[in-house]
Amino acid sequence: MDMTGTLSTTAERLYLSMKELPIVSPHGHCDPSWFAQNQPFANPAALLVTPDHYVFRMLYAQGIPMADLGIGAPGAEADPREVFRLFAAHWHLFLGTPTRLWMEYVLSETLQISQPLTAQTADAIYDDISERLQQAEFLPRALFERFNIETLATTDSALDDLAHHKSLRASHWPGRVIPTFRPDGVLDPLDPNFAANLAQLAKITDHSLDSFDSYLAALRMRRAEFIDCGATATDHAIDILHTEWLADPGPLYLSVAKGTATQEEARRFYGHMLIEMAQMSIEDGLVMQLHAGSRRNTNRTILDRFGRDMGADIPLTTDWVNGLDALLNRVGNSAELRLILFTLDETTYARALAPMAGHWPCLRIGPPWWFHDSANGIARYFDQVVETAGYFNLAGFNDDTRAFLSIPARHDLWRRGVALHLSHQIERGAFGLSGAEDLAPLLAVDLARQAYRIEV
Amino acid sequence: MDMTGTLSTTAERLYLSMKELPIVSPHGHCDPSWFAQNQPFANPAALLVTPDHYVFRMLYAQGIPMADLGIGAPGAEADPREVFRLFAAHWHLFLGTPTRLWMEYVLSETLQISQPLTAQTADAIYDDISERLQQAEFLPRALFERFNIETLATTDSALDDLAHHKSLRASHWPGRVIPTFRPDGVLDPLDPNFAANLAQLAKITDHSLDSFDSYLAALRMRRAEFIDCGATATDHAIDILHTEWLADPGPLYLSVAKGTATQEEARRFYGHMLIEMAQMSIEDGLVMQLHAGSRRNTNRTILDRFGRDMGADIPLTTDWVNGLDALLNRVGNSAELRLILFTLDETTYARALAPMAGHWPCLRIGPPWWFHDSANGIARYFDQVVETAGYFNLAGFNDDTRAFLSIPARHDLWRRGVALHLSHQIERGAFGLSGAEDLAPLLAVDLARQAYRIEV
Amino acid sequence: MDMTGTLSTTAERLYLSMKELPIVSPHGHCDPSWFAQNQPFANPAALLVTPDHYVFRMLYAQGIPMADLGIGAPGAEADPREVFRLFAAHWHLFLGTPTRLWMEYVLSETLQISQPLTAQTADAIYDDISERLQQAEFLPRALFERFNIETLATTDSALDDLAHHKSLRASHWPGRVIPTFRPDGVLDPLDPNFAANLAQLAKITDHSLDSFDSYLAALRMRRAEFIDCGATATDHAIDILHTEWLADPGPLYLSVAKGTATQEEARRFYGHMLIEMAQMSIEDGLVMQLHAGSRRNTNRTILDRFGRDMGADIPLTTDWVNGLDALLNRVGNSAELRLILFTLDETTYARALAPMAGHWPCLRIGPPWWFHDSANGIARYFDQVVETAGYFNLAGFNDDTRAFLSIPARHDLWRRGVALHLSHQIERGAFGLSGAEDLAPLLAVDLARQAYRIEV
Repeated sequence: MDMTGTLSTTAERLYLSMKELPIVSPHGHCDPSWFAQNQPFANPAALLVTPDHYVFRMLYAQGIPMADLGIGAPGAEADPREVFRLFAAHWHLFLGTPTRLWMEYVLSETLQISQPLTAQTADAIYDDISERLQQAEFLPRALFERFNIETLATTDSALDDLAHHKSLRASHWPGRVIPTFRPDGVLDPLDPNFAANLAQLAKITDHSLDSFDSYLAALRMRRAEFIDCGATATDHAIDILHTEWLADPGPLYLSVAKGTATQEEARRFYGHMLIEMAQMSIEDGLVMQLHAGSRRNTNRTILDRFGRDMGADIPLTTDWVNGLDALLNRVGNSAELRLILFTLDETTYARALAPMAGHWPCLRIGPPWWFHDSANGIARYFDQVVETAGYFNLAGFNDDTRAFLSIPARHDLWRRGVALHLSHQIERGAFGLSGAEDLAPLLAVDLARQAYRIEV
Repeated sequence: MDMTGTLSTTAERLYLSMKELPIVSPHGHCDPSWFAQNQPFANPAALLVTPDHYVFRMLYAQGIPMADLGIGAPGAEADPREVFRLFAAHWHLFLGTPTRLWMEYVLSETLQISQPLTAQTADAIYDDISERLQQAEFLPRALFERFNIETLATTDSALDDLAHHKSLRASHWPGRVIPTFRPDGVLDPLDPNFAANLAQLAKITDHSLDSFDSYLAALRMRRAEFIDCGATATDHAIDILHTEWLADPGPLYLSVAKGTATQEEARRFYGHMLIEMAQMSIEDGLVMQLHAGSRRNTNRTILDRFGRDMGADIPLTTDWVNGLDALLNRVGNSAELRLILFTLDETTYARALAPMAGHWPCLRIGPPWWFHDSANGIARYFDQVVETAGYFNLAGFNDDTRAFLSIPARHDLWRRGVALHLSHQIERGAFGLSGAEDLAPLLAVDLARQAYRIEV
Repeated sequence: MDMTGTLSTTAERLYLSMKELPIVSPHGHCDPSWFAQNQPFANPAALLVTPDHYVFRMLYAQGIPMADLGIGAPGAEADPREVFRLFAAHWHLFLGTPTRLWMEYVLSETLQISQPLTAQTADAIYDDISERLQQAEFLPRALFERFNIETLATTDSALDDLAHHKSLRASHWPGRVIPTFRPDGVLDPLDPNFAANLAQLAKITDHSLDSFDSYLAALRMRRAEFIDCGATATDHAIDILHTEWLADPGPLYLSVAKGTATQEEARRFYGHMLIEMAQMSIEDGLVMQLHAGSRRNTNRTILDRFGRDMGADIPLTTDWVNGLDALLNRVGNSAELRLILFTLDETTYARALAPMAGHWPCLRIGPPWWFHDSANGIARYFDQVVETAGYFNLAGFNDDTRAFLSIPARHDLWRRGVALHLSHQIERGAFGLSGAEDLAPLLAVDLARQAYRIEV
């Protein structure tokens, strides 16, 4: 696909100035074992279809059973070729979606497939991809290098042993893959596995966790271990944003640890812990990320039969102003704190996030997230945040993907979006070409490096 | 008006490919008696001004008394020529509104009036229209045929005797006019006429309604009668969306039937009945439409003096995620259910409706409704739903009008909006011209046919 | 800056038709003493940086201490030249913001500075501006005349003695500067100075305020004094919109006056008083302005150390439909009432404000406010209100600024936005050039005059 063909001359010039810049990927969900072990990817379906909830949600919405897609109870596997055929036969459903643009880029640019994907070409393309995946140049590390990735951050449970990350650091491979500390499971008492998670945290840190202080000490120990493996950031998810500073959290800690707290108490405890995390970030320098406003697993039949992350997570409205009030009023004026906010509620771009990030020194606005990481989503983001927040309160781009092959496609779509935005700014007189040429690399890579404190 | 003159070459090509396609109108408020009786329309004011709340709301907002517009207590009628003069003298108020575009199309294309509407031309135009309305080619059936309407659905109370629809089916006229089952008045205990409506339901179905089962049986009987008259869909309206499955609705039914339920109980009962309706739709195949989020009759002085639907219905925010949770988790995975959602809260396009329709097999997103059925409203709709829902989870177009003459104008505006959207997609590289040429007829007619299960 | 260089030919033609029209500024925060006393402005920092919360909020967000900007406890002043250097050195932070466009216009057009602002040119520019400010042609009255301001409304506390306004009216200077009645401090019991304000109101009106009637009489007296000084409007601010008509407000008045009311009672009292104000507007003809939805002083550390209006006011969602229900249902059908609504919640443009203003005779929609007074903000405003409200339910433009020098820049940006909007309307066939040419001066000046009942 000729992705530059339709850009204006100015936009194309700006795009070309970014096209070859390295990829900085400070937030995403790749598996570090891919790079630690450097084994071939299994097959085209397992690589491109089965793990991508953008893909199977759309097929399910149009009546295709999850089981036919190879998703189901353990052992209930579908033939990957059949899965790929099914995907190809329904390729028209993705017209107009970013999934289609990313996939076309992956097929043509990354996998060098020249045929268009159709029901008729599915088998041939499946064979071609399968063959490529066995070649040395399509192994994970080779692709990482070909993609010109400067830094790739994974997202790792606070309970992770970081074995793959340690192995990567011990290896001689120069690729920079770093972990991100994701402690929701040991902070949120409403997590179904909270008790087991605490037990595991006690075990791996050798802390009793029989007091709030012991619990905090265990969390600090784990943060330090992540930092030792190169981490520069934490990541936190919450559905309905709430922060609250408790004067005396000790007793509440004991009751959530015993499982005797009410739902409301659990919510307040998590709200307090987000502030504790911010305070630890001031101590240890980890950049804090907050992803708020997704209601998870809204389809309970699908959850019961197929588990989490099956395409039924739906955005909610998010009240950033009241939800962050306690955190910001406790630590928000600290120059050491860096807090990056991600929203699924676009109405908050101009109404809340841009005014807040244009005031509080700790805040940066994360790029368009999830459903909004798309051509129009990027345009709406710039349209609604820049006039109030400027460019220097933004955090650059995240690809936020577990679909490793799509990383270049996603950064490319962002860079095209940046080029279109900047050329539009020139057209309407916001600034001239030289201003735009300064901003382009900033938006493509530098703001991400700065926001995440990634040293080159 | 040269509506194609300003389109780009690509957009014009796409528009022309849709321009002559038949009109499929699966949801609207035309009166079936027009086609059953085929009498001339009364006069230009009664045809174009008095029944159109888009028109008189704007005139009222600028200080023109309702009574001067021929709207008032029964018998308090204004001279239609005076009403038309008043409308013409204030024609500038409609600059920039879709009403003005529709009306210009109706005057020039449908009524073949060549003069522009002004205070000076009002009388001449009134006379011209009056004369035309007496001609055979301006009778309802002739216009229906001239408009190239393939199917026109009306909206009919669950208590309607369907006499006009029966008479149409018995006639030899081939025009396809079908009813839609609209049962709010017998489902919502907060409807001021609920008790009388139940009594009427009992009478026309010959069911006692002395138990919840009897009540459900009566509803099933009426649905079957609508199906016999060609209905393919139901329609439901609710101001603040709520669904809830009651384990034992019988006792609550008895108290709402007696009028002893509280407001909160009434609300819960209606929330339960929406799920019952969805379950009946799975049984009998009627497509379910849900129009949520209009606060009706916000001007109580106007309501008391002039009645309902007088231009003071104002949109509310709508929480689709929580509001539909109970319904979707009971029946949302059924491949037999088809549920089309209409919103007046555009913030839900990208945040809720597109993610939900891109997951749940039963859901389709209805076209921009009411105030949003406009050039910008259509552009915002496509901009915000397509990237997450794709095109195949949309329900095509509805004109949703009681202004019969404006139907071609409204479909024309939609087709222009589709053409502009698709040409914009081509420009930014989403797909090529052939992709757009496939999507154009889909958006113009085929998705509407499919969504409403209208067989050609 | 060549602000017309990038406009299309049609947009430029429309822009030029508005460019030289007088400025009508019916709402803003200039200090009437500037014009009453006509003294030179102090220095470039005090003129352009220190008082502008758009400027220092952005600098603070990027880590610059407030104290370095000359903002702090009384007496803690910074060297104005140092402040200006700091501003110049961080000028890149404002790329993409309206502040940058306004300031560039002020520097080049108003202050006739030809060099671009950089860290290197800061001193020279500081000196140039300092010199100009001492010249007769840069005194406040000379600038007022050069700016071609027809009417400038200030905003004045209900307790203001209006001395400067009286002095202006007694002078022979023909510039029209009028006050606006802003009574929040004596209406809202939650105002921290409410008790002191009531005492002051009693004193200056010589009313005891020992009954609700006395309180209303005092308010009426003050309104009459404002009218004597030329006022045509009132202004009211409220964070969470609420109106409510109390059958017997007397007892509640006594308890809020004594300071014994609860927070909820205080809120209800303010909600009642907004309706009383509307009723007084019907009596005395003052146009009522309502600015709703800003949560003030969200950064409590900054509030404690530096006071109010320090850049930490953040917009909230606003429920216009329910919030105004009581007011509108009491007085909203009055042809004498004029109520202009300002929102920071853009989601209400199409969903609530446009439908409401397109129905209620009293309502007009104010222009984009605060963070939304920007190129994209203006585009979104027109995009979302015009199709439902038309143009004649809009209130034209407000600059709403205390930065006197930026007034021409702000009106210029609005007129460019109007030109772009109208040319876009022509392109998509909404109306032709002559329609646009009629609307241009209406949007630039006439609607503001009409909405605020300003006689020329």
